[in-house]
Amino acid sequence: MSKRLDDLNLNGLKVYQETDYFCFGIDSVLLANFVNSNSSKYNIVDLCSGSGVIPVIMSAKKKYNKIIGVELQKEMFELLKENIEFNKLDEKIIGINEDIKNIDNIKKELLQNIGCNRVDIVTCNPPYKKQGTGIENENDVKYIARHEVKCNIEDIFKTTANILKSKGKLYIVHKPDRLVDLFEIARKYKLEPKTVRFVHPTSIKAPSIVLIEYIKDGGNELKILDPLIEYNENGTYTDEIYETYS
Amino acid sequence: MSKRLDDLNLNGLKVYQETDYFCFGIDSVLLANFVNSNSSKYNIVDLCSGSGVIPVIMSAKKKYNKIIGVELQKEMFELLKENIEFNKLDEKIIGINEDIKNIDNIKKELLQNIGCNRVDIVTCNPPYKKQGTGIENENDVKYIARHEVKCNIEDIFKTTANILKSKGKLYIVHKPDRLVDLFEIARKYKLEPKTVRFVHPTSIKAPSIVLIEYIKDGGNELKILDPLIEYNENGTYTDEIYETYS
Repeated sequence: MSKRLDDLNLNGLKVYQETDYFCFGIDSVLLANFVNSNSSKYNIVDLCSGSGVIPVIMSAKKKYNKIIGVELQKEMFELLKENIEFNKLDEKIIGINEDIKNIDNIKKELLQNIGCNRVDIVTCNPPYKKQGTGIENENDVKYIARHEVKCNIEDIFKTTANILKSKGKLYIVHKPDRLVDLFEIARKYKLEPKTVRFVHPTSIKAPSIVLIEYIKDGGNELKILDPLIEYNENGTYTDEIYETYS
Repeated sequence: MSKRLDDLNLNGLKVYQETDYFCFGIDSVLLANFVNSNSSKYNIVDLCSGSGVIPVIMSAKKKYNKIIGVELQKEMFELLKENIEFNKLDEKIIGINEDIKNIDNIKKELLQNIGCNRVDIVTCNPPYKKQGTGIENENDVKYIARHEVKCNIEDIFKTTANILKSKGKLYIVHKPDRLVDLFEIARKYKLEPKTVRFVHPTSIKAPSIVLIEYIKDGGNELKILDPLIEYNENGTYTDEIYETYS
């Protein structure tokens, strides 16, 4: 095992990661940046929280009251706790070691920590890949973090619909090739896709990442934003990516 | 009324349009180009065919057996017939003056003209706008061509599902703000979105048009293609747009 301390270049925040497990990428940073949380009264639940990168970045970039990070895997949850302590965010971030499919347990924990019907925002950077793709090892921490072994898109919508208040927002980052599921299954749970931003490696290439904002019980009206482009033609980061990382 | 003859710059093809009605735009040209029809055995049905621009362009650009253009509005249908005759395409294009919601009548016409279960491809450039938007005049030819007065997204999927053979393809051009409906409602009718291409005015602007390919009874797997960009930074057409128009 090899633990690594990564500097987020944000108010001195750093996160521990196990390089043997799943390390966070640009998608977590982009999702945290995409979230429209501008009130110090908002409570946020981060599903599939991993080592807690999204809660930690949100602490530097956005206003909110509390973030509850839900992570199933013990090994990742230990890192999440360590990252909360190390960054002295104990009063802002609460970790819960639970399967997102155990909705009753999650509701109990939320009731204890923030009260009833108090979730304004849900964020999620879920496992992207369908089960059965890649080299399968269902007990592997990294495999579970990347593949839909323990939770799939429908599980995320189901749990979100159960904990999010009406007109509350869900933010997901995912792969564009799952867009039909990300729209169709969401509507079954009254989560209406409202804003989409595609992230393209360059301006002439197909998107590699999609960011989606949903509103629970929202009306049917979608807005697709200007594309977010990662690299200029000469291979340097675009200004927007620089700003996202600072 | 003022009739205008537009040169398509394609093998000498021209189309008559009534400028008082709905005139075709870049979206019809892009859709005709997007269609993957490469067999002289394929039969195509063009729903909401208008003055028949898509069938006429397809005749120059793609292989197929017959195209059946279905148009509800008498005034537009007269233009469609004129455009078939003028371009000497009587043996390739058949016009039907019918409401796409009268599925039984359309099936009868198809049976007469091409036989049973012989539709390989459906194309549609439907009215884009929701009813109730803009200045409403339900009897106006132009209003009906632009707004969902006589047919909406669900009608198109329902009729397509009824006439298209299994594994046949549907091609739609629409506005990106209707993408959730274009995915979610399609699945109700076993029309699976398979390929999406967004058309952007410039590389840094949000898409203004979306092209979608569906497969009836297709598996769940979406591919988003590289963006189609209309204008270069200096305001000239991109090479791809030039090629599309030639």
